[in-house]
Amino acid sequence: MKTYLDCHRCFLRQALSAARRAGASPEEQRLVLLQTMERLQSLAADATPPEMAEVIHRLVRTRMNDPDPYRQTKTDATEQALALLPQLRERVQAAANPLDLAVRVAIAGNIIDQGVAETFELEATVDRVLAQPFAIDGLSALRRALRRTNSILYLADNAGETVFDRVLIENSPHPVSYVVKAEPVINDATRDDALGAGLAEVAEIIDNGSAAPGTVLARCSAPFRERFEGASLIVATGQANYETLSGLTAPIFFLLQAKCSVIADELGVSQGAIVLKAPEEPTRTRATA
Amino acid sequence: MKTYLDCHRCFLRQALSAARRAGASPEEQRLVLLQTMERLQSLAADATPPEMAEVIHRLVRTRMNDPDPYRQTKTDATEQALALLPQLRERVQAAANPLDLAVRVAIAGNIIDQGVAETFELEATVDRVLAQPFAIDGLSALRRALRRTNSILYLADNAGETVFDRVLIENSPHPVSYVVKAEPVINDATRDDALGAGLAEVAEIIDNGSAAPGTVLARCSAPFRERFEGASLIVATGQANYETLSGLTAPIFFLLQAKCSVIADELGVSQGAIVLKAPEEPTRTRATA
Repeated sequence: MKTYLDCHRCFLRQALSAARRAGASPEEQRLVLLQTMERLQSLAADATPPEMAEVIHRLVRTRMNDPDPYRQTKTDATEQALALLPQLRERVQAAANPLDLAVRVAIAGNIIDQGVAETFELEATVDRVLAQPFAIDGLSALRRALRRTNSILYLADNAGETVFDRVLIENSPHPVSYVVKAEPVINDATRDDALGAGLAEVAEIIDNGSAAPGTVLARCSAPFRERFEGASLIVATGQANYETLSGLTAPIFFLLQAKCSVIADELGVSQGAIVLKAPEEPTRTRATA
Repeated sequence: MKTYLDCHRCFLRQALSAARRAGASPEEQRLVLLQTMERLQSLAADATPPEMAEVIHRLVRTRMNDPDPYRQTKTDATEQALALLPQLRERVQAAANPLDLAVRVAIAGNIIDQGVAETFELEATVDRVLAQPFAIDGLSALRRALRRTNSILYLADNAGETVFDRVLIENSPHPVSYVVKAEPVINDATRDDALGAGLAEVAEIIDNGSAAPGTVLARCSAPFRERFEGASLIVATGQANYETLSGLTAPIFFLLQAKCSVIADELGVSQGAIVLKAPEEPTRTRATA
């Protein structure tokens, strides 16, 4: 997905927020903002929003000499999510349709996103998302895909959200490889964040070699790209994964909340909608052809 | 009030919104955004937000050759507000304290502001503001000031809001001069907008000679500045008037809703608060000294 003009003001918010988290003085904040606008002016027309976000957050980390301005935020979010884990599991176990509910849990966790907003209401979001109809409902396609595969490549999004992913992974019929970022960027989950959320108990944790939000394949490591290309079922959570992978022909199921108007418009849903977007079933078409 | 770093993203939103209203193509929108960022990079450290807004909106009007991109929006807002006029008057007449209620009506109208947000809920806002406690309550000071003056200089804000001002002016014990912008900028009221709202029936309409939002005195005409300096009671509505005049020693009563976090923080109130801020009563202090 290309960067829309409406994304620019969001980049300015992110830049300021990251600078402040890294303890920037007002003058340093101003310089970060000016530099961000400079970079925006030379942004490639086909760059995705996460590619720009990578540039901005690297700029802040370097200038402020802070390798992870969101560290505390991520730890707090993981703790907050872990406190909900028992009731999330109970709700899935009690559900008439556990897969449906576990998918919803993973989508609910997607509210934890410092890239889109500064604050969120976690428990209220869980209640809302568990009851809300899907705006795009790929659940039947996901069931079919699960019958045709024997492993899942799961692209993580943010720290804290990891705990919600864990609930879905616990309900997976196949082994899961859980993909995190190689270096911190915004509140995206790294290996440490995934470990803190207990993902090692339910999945193999690997990193994608990159410090961009989402999955910018050109910035990922060769070993990860190989895993990606060989995967028969990919679950990609969050807006940034959609923004970076939506153009590809690949067996990707996107799980997300459409938290900003740009993504909502791009997907043709309303803001706040919940989405499980299936691939266009190329395997099946090929088999029939 | 200086321009905060948090204002920058709001300028980008305004620039895009104005360009789109003027029918800009995606490429023209991009150029407007780039030019806006260029201007932001050379913004004077002590410039107020309305001074920057003047630059941006002039840029859009000139580039798009559209003297008033918000014309339709302003006409619609005035019509919408006029439809409420009878019930607003009734509510004031039925009130135990008509001045308090008329002031609240004027503040409620301040939700009509395309500078701060793209949409608003007019009727819900009226109900809220008429019942909401003042975060800063200068009503007693306003009563005292009204006893000491025999005329009022009333600085208007946006088209549509004009109708709400009219309700307050109808309850004024003194003649009112109603000050509008000399040229269109955002949805700020011009003479035509004030005439369309029926202000000529209750006040003398004058313009301030400027096309900046708020009241940037240095950009106003000499005749207006003379009126301003000679005024014994000034009512200034809306955020932009506060942003441009808050540093002055003058008999100004600010009426506004703190619609954005920057203004709310500056005033020490929460976002959404309603404010009637009195001057520091210099006349009285002088009389005692």
